[in-house]
Amino acid sequence: MTVEITGFDWVPDFAKGFVRDLRPRWACAEIGLPYSMRLLNAAAPRPEAYFQEQPWGQVPALVDPDHGVRMFESGAILLHLGEKDERLLPRDPQGRVTAISWLFAAYNSVEPLTFELSNIEIFAAGEKWAELRRPSLIEFAGQRLDRLATAIEGREWLAGRFSIADIAMATVLRNVEGSGLIEERPVLMAYLERAIDRPAFKAALAAQLADFKPAPAAAA
Amino acid sequence: MTVEITGFDWVPDFAKGFVRDLRPRWACAEIGLPYSMRLLNAAAPRPEAYFQEQPWGQVPALVDPDHGVRMFESGAILLHLGEKDERLLPRDPQGRVTAISWLFAAYNSVEPLTFELSNIEIFAAGEKWAELRRPSLIEFAGQRLDRLATAIEGREWLAGRFSIADIAMATVLRNVEGSGLIEERPVLMAYLERAIDRPAFKAALAAQLADFKPAPAAAA
Repeated sequence: MTVEITGFDWVPDFAKGFVRDLRPRWACAEIGLPYSMRLLNAAAPRPEAYFQEQPWGQVPALVDPDHGVRMFESGAILLHLGEKDERLLPRDPQGRVTAISWLFAAYNSVEPLTFELSNIEIFAAGEKWAELRRPSLIEFAGQRLDRLATAIEGREWLAGRFSIADIAMATVLRNVEGSGLIEERPVLMAYLERAIDRPAFKAALAAQLADFKPAPAAAA
Repeated sequence: MTVEITGFDWVPDFAKGFVRDLRPRWACAEIGLPYSMRLLNAAAPRPEAYFQEQPWGQVPALVDPDHGVRMFESGAILLHLGEKDERLLPRDPQGRVTAISWLFAAYNSVEPLTFELSNIEIFAAGEKWAELRRPSLIEFAGQRLDRLATAIEGREWLAGRFSIADIAMATVLRNVEGSGLIEERPVLMAYLERAIDRPAFKAALAAQLADFKPAPAAAA
C-alpha cells in the first residue's frame, strides 16, 4: 500500500527543503509508510488537468490506494495520514481533539503570519510597502508566538506526545527561521530543534532534496 | 448533550455577525444540535485562565460533554462537529476526504488572503503600506478566487453536497464582501448567496447578533 504524493522536480534554491510535500513525507517517515512521488515538471506550465486534483496547482496532492481516494491541502493530508496510525494522531478523545486543534492552529493562526512574512522577505523584497509593513507584522507575529511559547513551555510536544500537529507547527516555524521570531524565543527554538532532530524529519528532508534536478528541465 | 461554545458579549459594529463563533453555531444549527454560549466580557482584559483553553485568547473554544473534551480553533471544531453527523461530513471515503481537503483550503489557502485584506481595510486603513500593498494583494487573491470559481462551477457545494467545508468557505468569502473580489465572480457570488440563504446560517447569524449587548459592560 504505497501512497502517492505530488512534488516538484525543481524549485529555486530558497525553496529547496521547504516545499510542502515535506510535511506528508515526514508523516510517512514517522510511521514507516512507503510513499512514491509524482514529480511535476517545474519548467513547463502546470497541466490544466492537475488543477482538478489540486485547485491552486500547488503540491502536495495525495492518492491513497486504500479506498482509492484523492485529496489535497497538506493539512488535510496530515490528518488523513494521522488516521492511519496513533503515533501520528492520539486515539484517546482528548488527545485527538487537542492534536487537531493545534493542527488548525498551525495552519490558520500561525502560518498566515509566516506567509505574509515570507512574502515580504522574498517575493516583495525591496518594495516600499514591504519595508513599511514589516515592523507591525513582526510585532503582531511576535505577540502570537509569545502565546505559543507559553503553551509549549513545560511540554515536549503540542498534544503532550508527538503528533501531526508538531509536523505542521515545526514546518511552519522553520519557514521563518532567521527572522529573529524564533531565535528570540528559546522555548520555540528548543521545540523546533527537537522536531527537526527527529530521524523522520531528516529522512523526509533528504528525500525532498534528492528529488530536485540540478536545473529545471527545458520546456518542451 | 449540549455543547458549550465561547463568544463575546460585545464587539465593534464592523465585527458584529462576523465573529468566528458563527461557524460552530451554523454547524450546530444544521443538525439541530443544542449549544449554549459562554460569553466573554469584551470590556475586561481576557482572564489569563482563558488562554489555557484558547491560546490566542480568541473565540470560539468548545466544551463537549461527549467524552468531556475541550478544544479550540474553529476549523478543528467544525471537523469535530462534522464527525457527529453525516449531514456535515460525508461518510463515504472520497466524500470525507474531499470535504476535509476543502475545509483546509478555506482555512489555509483562502483565509490568509482575506485576513490580510481585512487588516488592510480595517485595522491598517489609512496607513501608507496598506494603500501600496492593496493592488498586488487584490491581484493575487483574485487569481486564487478564479481557481476557486472554476472548482465550484457546475456544482452546488464544494464536496458535492453541503458540508463543513461550505460553512468554512462561505464564512471566509463573506468576510471580504464589498471588496469586489466576490462580486466580480458570479459563480462565487451565487455560491455565497446559496450558503447564506440556508435557514441554519440565518439562525446562527441571528443568534450571534442577539447575544451582543448594546454597549460594552464597564470594566470592573
